Amino acid sequence: MVSKNQRKQILQLKQKKYRLSTGLFVAEGEKVIEELLSASWDCVYLFSIAPHFHPQSEVIDPSVMKQLTHFKTPSPVLGVFKSPDLKALSKSNITLAVDGVSDPGNLGTLIRICDWYGLSDLICSSNTVDCYNSKVVQASMGSIVRVQCHYVDDLHSTLINLNKPIYGADLNGQSLYKTDFEEQASFVFGSESHGLSAAVSKIINHKITIPNFRSGRGAESLNVAVAGAIFLSEIFRSK
Amino acid sequence: MVSKNQRKQILQLKQKKYRLSTGLFVAEGEKVIEELLSASWDCVYLFSIAPHFHPQSEVIDPSVMKQLTHFKTPSPVLGVFKSPDLKALSKSNITLAVDGVSDPGNLGTLIRICDWYGLSDLICSSNTVDCYNSKVVQASMGSIVRVQCHYVDDLHSTLINLNKPIYGADLNGQSLYKTDFEEQASFVFGSESHGLSAAVSKIINHKITIPNFRSGRGAESLNVAVAGAIFLSEIFRSK
Repeated sequence: MVSKNQRKQILQLKQKKYRLSTGLFVAEGEKVIEELLSASWDCVYLFSIAPHFHPQSEVIDPSVMKQLTHFKTPSPVLGVFKSPDLKALSKSNITLAVDGVSDPGNLGTLIRICDWYGLSDLICSSNTVDCYNSKVVQASMGSIVRVQCHYVDDLHSTLINLNKPIYGADLNGQSLYKTDFEEQASFVFGSESHGLSAAVSKIINHKITIPNFRSGRGAESLNVAVAGAIFLSEIFRSK
Repeated sequence: MVSKNQRKQILQLKQKKYRLSTGLFVAEGEKVIEELLSASWDCVYLFSIAPHFHPQSEVIDPSVMKQLTHFKTPSPVLGVFKSPDLKALSKSNITLAVDGVSDPGNLGTLIRICDWYGLSDLICSSNTVDCYNSKVVQASMGSIVRVQCHYVDDLHSTLINLNKPIYGADLNGQSLYKTDFEEQASFVFGSESHGLSAAVSKIINHKITIPNFRSGRGAESLNVAVAGAIFLSEIFRSK
């Protein structure tokens, strides 16, 4: 059974301020929850509409799940997890950063792509959507257990302190396909609607563009997750 | 003012059967609607919550827009458009096809990526989500005016009839980065949950994988739009 307090808490966890004050977040979907459990992330409670999902899971009625879900369509399982303590940024040749990305689906997809290309960290400006937003967790498909998001107040200072050349995705830069990237490098992506912030723009060493192959009027941009995927593919293709 | 019939029709157009029987679809969002209008797609009616969006647009109250929208959050503009007659498949060295992609966001994003890389056609199996689904139109960011979706009953026959080598995205194939693609080629992507259908799998000449750079357990797959972006980047990078 779901207590009144549990229900209240699950719904409150839609809001970042409650996630911050409690250190908890909500995950939904079998695949995502299986990833969190196998990574031994601390599960506070777990509800499932089917029996035997997990020894810890409590069976609830689909109508109750409908009241708990953070989504339009509920998943068969929903869990409340503790967000783990952040480990220090791992030493890596390639560092990825995002500057003001607000779409949760884009951030989650980007986390999944980082995972695919073996990156363990993603640096996020403080105005980037919270990685424990349910939609981010969902879109990451559980990759959030292997890719840590480090939220920083001054993204530009953080990037400078890494002491690596900084490449910025930009609509007016040199071609991605004609750039020889340094072995050690940082890459930063802005928000779809506003691009890179002024402070970050200033410290970019190389502005890089994914060439547009449409002659005449075409798509004006690519979404940040797609741009990130194309960059990472290009960076790692020769490794 | 929105008439009772208009409201009813707009809501009915959420369903594919009504889109098919009327040849109409709903588009929302300024950017998308501007693209449709500049491409001279036939607009049946256009509603806006702000004045002067377009000579044809009728101003309505935000509370009314809330009743019309196909989304959780309404856009400032909503239009009903006629889906144009499909032109024949254009001659192109590179042909992209999708096999059973059901997520509207993924299909729309893929349409936008095709546009970026200059492709004008996308072949879709008949069980692929309808390209005039409002979420597809939205995610395409208007690229749907430049990329035609051709729905076919027998995707495998269509691909065979193109007389080009067929490359299929697969989790167990040769590395994308170690493949020299033919100048003229077809590429086919399956659904995220079920991969390629049996009929299409049989006719693939080369199964191609985006290598996973994570050692040990990592993301199991990439979403189809991201995979499509990485493939197209790799195909076009040397062009």
